[in-house]
Amino acid sequence: MIENLKKEVFQANLDLVKYGLVIFTWGNVSARCGEYIVIKPSGVSYETMKAEDMVVLDLDGNRIEGNYNPSSDTPTHLELYKAFPGIGGITHTHSSYATSFAQAGMPITPMGTTHADYFYGTIPCTRNLSSEETESAYEKNTGKVIIETFEGRDPIAIPGVIVRNHGVFSWGKDAFESVHNAVVMEEVAKMNYRALALNPSAGTVRQYILDKHYYRKHGENSYYGQKEKEVEK
Amino acid sequence: MIENLKKEVFQANLDLVKYGLVIFTWGNVSARCGEYIVIKPSGVSYETMKAEDMVVLDLDGNRIEGNYNPSSDTPTHLELYKAFPGIGGITHTHSSYATSFAQAGMPITPMGTTHADYFYGTIPCTRNLSSEETESAYEKNTGKVIIETFEGRDPIAIPGVIVRNHGVFSWGKDAFESVHNAVVMEEVAKMNYRALALNPSAGTVRQYILDKHYYRKHGENSYYGQKEKEVEK
Amino acid sequence: MIENLKKEVFQANLDLVKYGLVIFTWGNVSARCGEYIVIKPSGVSYETMKAEDMVVLDLDGNRIEGNYNPSSDTPTHLELYKAFPGIGGITHTHSSYATSFAQAGMPITPMGTTHADYFYGTIPCTRNLSSEETESAYEKNTGKVIIETFEGRDPIAIPGVIVRNHGVFSWGKDAFESVHNAVVMEEVAKMNYRALALNPSAGTVRQYILDKHYYRKHGENSYYGQKEKEVEK
Amino acid sequence: MIENLKKEVFQANLDLVKYGLVIFTWGNVSARCGEYIVIKPSGVSYETMKAEDMVVLDLDGNRIEGNYNPSSDTPTHLELYKAFPGIGGITHTHSSYATSFAQAGMPITPMGTTHADYFYGTIPCTRNLSSEETESAYEKNTGKVIIETFEGRDPIAIPGVIVRNHGVFSWGKDAFESVHNAVVMEEVAKMNYRALALNPSAGTVRQYILDKHYYRKHGENSYYGQKEKEVEK
Repeated sequence: MIENLKKEVFQANLDLVKYGLVIFTWGNVSARCGEYIVIKPSGVSYETMKAEDMVVLDLDGNRIEGNYNPSSDTPTHLELYKAFPGIGGITHTHSSYATSFAQAGMPITPMGTTHADYFYGTIPCTRNLSSEETESAYEKNTGKVIIETFEGRDPIAIPGVIVRNHGVFSWGKDAFESVHNAVVMEEVAKMNYRALALNPSAGTVRQYILDKHYYRKHGENSYYGQKEKEVEK
Repeated sequence: MIENLKKEVFQANLDLVKYGLVIFTWGNVSARCGEYIVIKPSGVSYETMKAEDMVVLDLDGNRIEGNYNPSSDTPTHLELYKAFPGIGGITHTHSSYATSFAQAGMPITPMGTTHADYFYGTIPCTRNLSSEETESAYEKNTGKVIIETFEGRDPIAIPGVIVRNHGVFSWGKDAFESVHNAVVMEEVAKMNYRALALNPSAGTVRQYILDKHYYRKHGENSYYGQKEKEVEK
Repeated sequence: MIENLKKEVFQANLDLVKYGLVIFTWGNVSARCGEYIVIKPSGVSYETMKAEDMVVLDLDGNRIEGNYNPSSDTPTHLELYKAFPGIGGITHTHSSYATSFAQAGMPITPMGTTHADYFYGTIPCTRNLSSEETESAYEKNTGKVIIETFEGRDPIAIPGVIVRNHGVFSWGKDAFESVHNAVVMEEVAKMNYRALALNPSAGTVRQYILDKHYYRKHGENSYYGQKEKEVEK
Repeated sequence: MIENLKKEVFQANLDLVKYGLVIFTWGNVSARCGEYIVIKPSGVSYETMKAEDMVVLDLDGNRIEGNYNPSSDTPTHLELYKAFPGIGGITHTHSSYATSFAQAGMPITPMGTTHADYFYGTIPCTRNLSSEETESAYEKNTGKVIIETFEGRDPIAIPGVIVRNHGVFSWGKDAFESVHNAVVMEEVAKMNYRALALNPSAGTVRQYILDKHYYRKHGENSYYGQKEKEVEK
């Protein structure tokens, strides 16, 4: 089970490169399985990394398996897994357009149906960490400020966040879905960046369009894609 | 015949990836042959899709062949085929620059000869659907609002449209030409985006240049490319 | 000789694709050899084109060899060869950033040393053609308006032009150098586009820097690259 | 030793192409070993260049080994090696976004943690060279103006510079690290370009975040990546 999860996490990390979300070691993906998480080792190149290099930790961050140090962002991942029980995978990137929003201190508002297909509303931008939060337990506090940002928001319906001056965290039911949502964030950041340049007062998509697109892909009345039964004949 | 058309539609869908117009499953191509249309299945990955997975429907949307559900955008395609009898292929994408125009609520005006070579005038942007149109028969009404937008316009001379807050529909005499026109829309959106940033008052190409470029490639006095006879010797 | 030139022109046309300057058939390269020119056939795909498909013409535009019609832009090439005797190759593209300058009606001013290494001053933008010039002998008049634009300018020192609302023509001592200059024009257009967005009043590089960079690569006191003798031992 | 260094410098030059920092011959990398430097030959194509074509010079610029002329930027490299004794590799590029900052005459301010992970503060932009500095010993004076720009700055903590109207110089402990820093400069220039367009008053990352990110990767209390011992078991 954990061996398969290592392969999944390894593959999901390589997908960051495939989708152009990272260069060098600027990103990491983890997955959760019960009381354990599997995460990319810190500072190891995507070009030489192997599945067995993935690090297994318990939810307190104790290393259970693996020769490497886990990603330095591990405490952020752990906070999110503990606060958002429905999620099974987390991705962190400095993808270019979304990180420009982080540097501008701006959320990604829903300007079109591409956004609405995956995120049910604005992808928020966190506040700045204070100097105290930064100097002690920085990575853990990055998790805490994300959780604070989601007070009153549903992390399942909005599976990602812009971290102020930093980059992207996204999540999903497993490692691959968290990468998928990171790709979506980069694409909608790109579309919004240009739409705002073309028309600064363009505004957001209407609520009923947001509802329509989100719910035709999510929930019990969804009708996008294939029902399991129908496909498997 | 239909088997060949399935192969064509399959290939045209893969061309969306080749030309960088789609990621994941964000696009679809269909073709019409008499009373039937062939269309991409819904939510199936371009990486694993096969020609035999294409879905055959009649013009009322009844599935004639295929194991999968057709694209959820099928009702839009059907409306367009019924209203624009001269067309044999339709493409839908969320291509990045053109979708930024959709999000900005802006048409693509003819600013240069690249545009004039393929589109004889402004590529219009639809109005927003109302909440009623969205909540009942959304995809069919997306087709209807495109048709409304083309009242007084010739869909053969302007083979594409920006759907407000959504993306692109383009069409042509067959599946491949509809993809070709989708590529052109993305390229001219890109050129116009930057031209408008450089010079917001740049305006459009003069009418006589638009005429010249459009008619040197289209109609009986065209002289671009090769005459059939001459080539086949 | 002409067979070799056909191969060169064929290869130079493929280089347009390699350097990302064209999609579909949106570009063409020609070369001159004495009283003849070799040029890409009109509307033929870069993917299927062969060296023997290149068309040989005399300077009056009479077809000497080849089964295809020459590029519809041939009369523009012919005018330029006749007016600028020092040039041996011409490239035409709709490359994306440079064409945005054409659509904005803006020249490419020398904002940095990348420009100064190849173009000794502003790359001008032509005026619009009149309706008369457009309706009769459009392509020939495109050449004439380029030549008019170069009154008082040296086409050897400024080997390219922005054609208003259209695209790029560039030239050089042979087909490859004309493609090289088209690449440079796209790159400097890209750099200038962003520099102008960052700082609209950035202005141009100082004249003595322009002199330094241009003349360290061109003319008898140049010292960039290798002297023939030294390399060929 | 020098043979290995030639291979390293050769490979680092090819990495400029791999990371999309150069086209044609618009860049060069050198490395220092004691009293010698190894550098790319001038104007030689990356496509045909071989490791043995690298040129070996002493610190006065005398050629010790190699058939080619060294890069015309060699005097700039030599000035930097002599003034910044801690560095073992230097890269020069005209990478697109960073060069737009050069053309705009703007430094790259630290707007996010991507920057802070590698550069401890603003990447400065040099002043213009005077006409005297340009006309005599231009390349050497380019080095001198960089050194002047670093008065009061630590070149180890800020391993790169924007040269006004020109491009990028970056450096590091060896050739590969200098290329790595050139990639970082291009990426942060890209992120900042867009962040400034989104929010012109975004400002810089807070000092305590800059401290945190820089020092978790650099210096004795760093904790990013792997400790040697731990990995080698």
